[in-house]
Amino acid sequence: MSDRHRNTPNRRAGRPRHVPYAGSAAPREQILDVAALLFVRHGFAATSTRDIADAVGIRQASLYYHFSGKDDILAELLNRSVRPTVDNIAKIEHLVPPETHETALYLLALVDVGTLEAAPHNVGLLSRLPDVTESPVYEQFRDARVELADGYGRLGASIARPAIVDLIGQRRLGEILIQVVDSAINMRSLGESPDGRSSNAVASTCLRICGCDDQQISSAASTATQLFQGFRDESLPG
Amino acid sequence: MSDRHRNTPNRRAGRPRHVPYAGSAAPREQILDVAALLFVRHGFAATSTRDIADAVGIRQASLYYHFSGKDDILAELLNRSVRPTVDNIAKIEHLVPPETHETALYLLALVDVGTLEAAPHNVGLLSRLPDVTESPVYEQFRDARVELADGYGRLGASIARPAIVDLIGQRRLGEILIQVVDSAINMRSLGESPDGRSSNAVASTCLRICGCDDQQISSAASTATQLFQGFRDESLPG
Repeated sequence: MSDRHRNTPNRRAGRPRHVPYAGSAAPREQILDVAALLFVRHGFAATSTRDIADAVGIRQASLYYHFSGKDDILAELLNRSVRPTVDNIAKIEHLVPPETHETALYLLALVDVGTLEAAPHNVGLLSRLPDVTESPVYEQFRDARVELADGYGRLGASIARPAIVDLIGQRRLGEILIQVVDSAINMRSLGESPDGRSSNAVASTCLRICGCDDQQISSAASTATQLFQGFRDESLPG
Repeated sequence: MSDRHRNTPNRRAGRPRHVPYAGSAAPREQILDVAALLFVRHGFAATSTRDIADAVGIRQASLYYHFSGKDDILAELLNRSVRPTVDNIAKIEHLVPPETHETALYLLALVDVGTLEAAPHNVGLLSRLPDVTESPVYEQFRDARVELADGYGRLGASIARPAIVDLIGQRRLGEILIQVVDSAINMRSLGESPDGRSSNAVASTCLRICGCDDQQISSAASTATQLFQGFRDESLPG
């Protein structure tokens, strides 16, 4: 699911360098990967473009050939943590008939947890930076996140009984479902390694919030898991 | 619920100052309030102790009389956003008999949402800073958050059917419930003003995740709301 792997086949042998970075991806991808690690480990504010360039083993000027600054790098990382999921919403709604939207919501949660777990160095954490709520650099990311919340709210409201939607409200329901999926970020922070169990725990919780019973959850899980396998085969090289 | 209000009666009339800050709380409380606003609005990294002192209308040296630096200010703000809830966990578990732990979980969610909604300038947002996951300054906050997750996980696991606990795991259940409660932070960010409806939406969702049915939720809601009124009367001046 990670774009990093998707781009790996394009790598070319560059001049030999004594680089601290052990990867062999294209320079742009190396920069993104190293920046993600440093941002998450030391904080965004405490990391300079100089630190990133040094850790990649390139000159700062070369970094600026690929990115206009560290905001630009963070923006790209954030887009990648949400864009693959958002791009799949329409596809999922098209694929799954409206009368079985439990399956659609389950599948969306699987795709979303998969994206968060595949993101290098748990960059989902960085979406929580307050800085990200303001600066125009992150507008694309914020728009994508609104689209995602709308998608969750729409699917959730189409499943849940009217009494549940009335109490929670469609917008808040979307935010609650996103928060539940984002628990995958917390679990990574706590050192849990990603497994299929975590996706199913999160996806079934999303359905339970909408008032689905065990029978509905188990049926949605089985269909969504098959569909998800198809998604993975399509988008992952290996 | 806010400590800021609790401390207001201690304020003294200082020398008259031409201050941009319009409040009349004790200096320490003014600093916390203004810092929360600046941290949330401009980001923690982009805010200096000089900015905070200027906005309060005091000299930087006076700020350092109260706090050792901006980390220290953030640590205090974070502690206040979680401590009141954590301090109530034991009280709630003592108050509510184990056979009605649905009520205890509902009440804990009400207290937690209440604390997040009372916190000045939505400082709950700041708990999501990646910086907070590392530095020793925030150890107290991190410990309190672990205690909170443990409390949610323990209460959730004592309510949920074994099949649900087996699928999700007690630790992840705690993280999911915290995430659901933290949706109150998202809703404030989106400009929604706090109301009782939001607490009930969040608390009932927590119970639904544990597999409670409408009847159990409605009964827990009614008892917990009464108990919560008692908590408020005790801890709030007005």
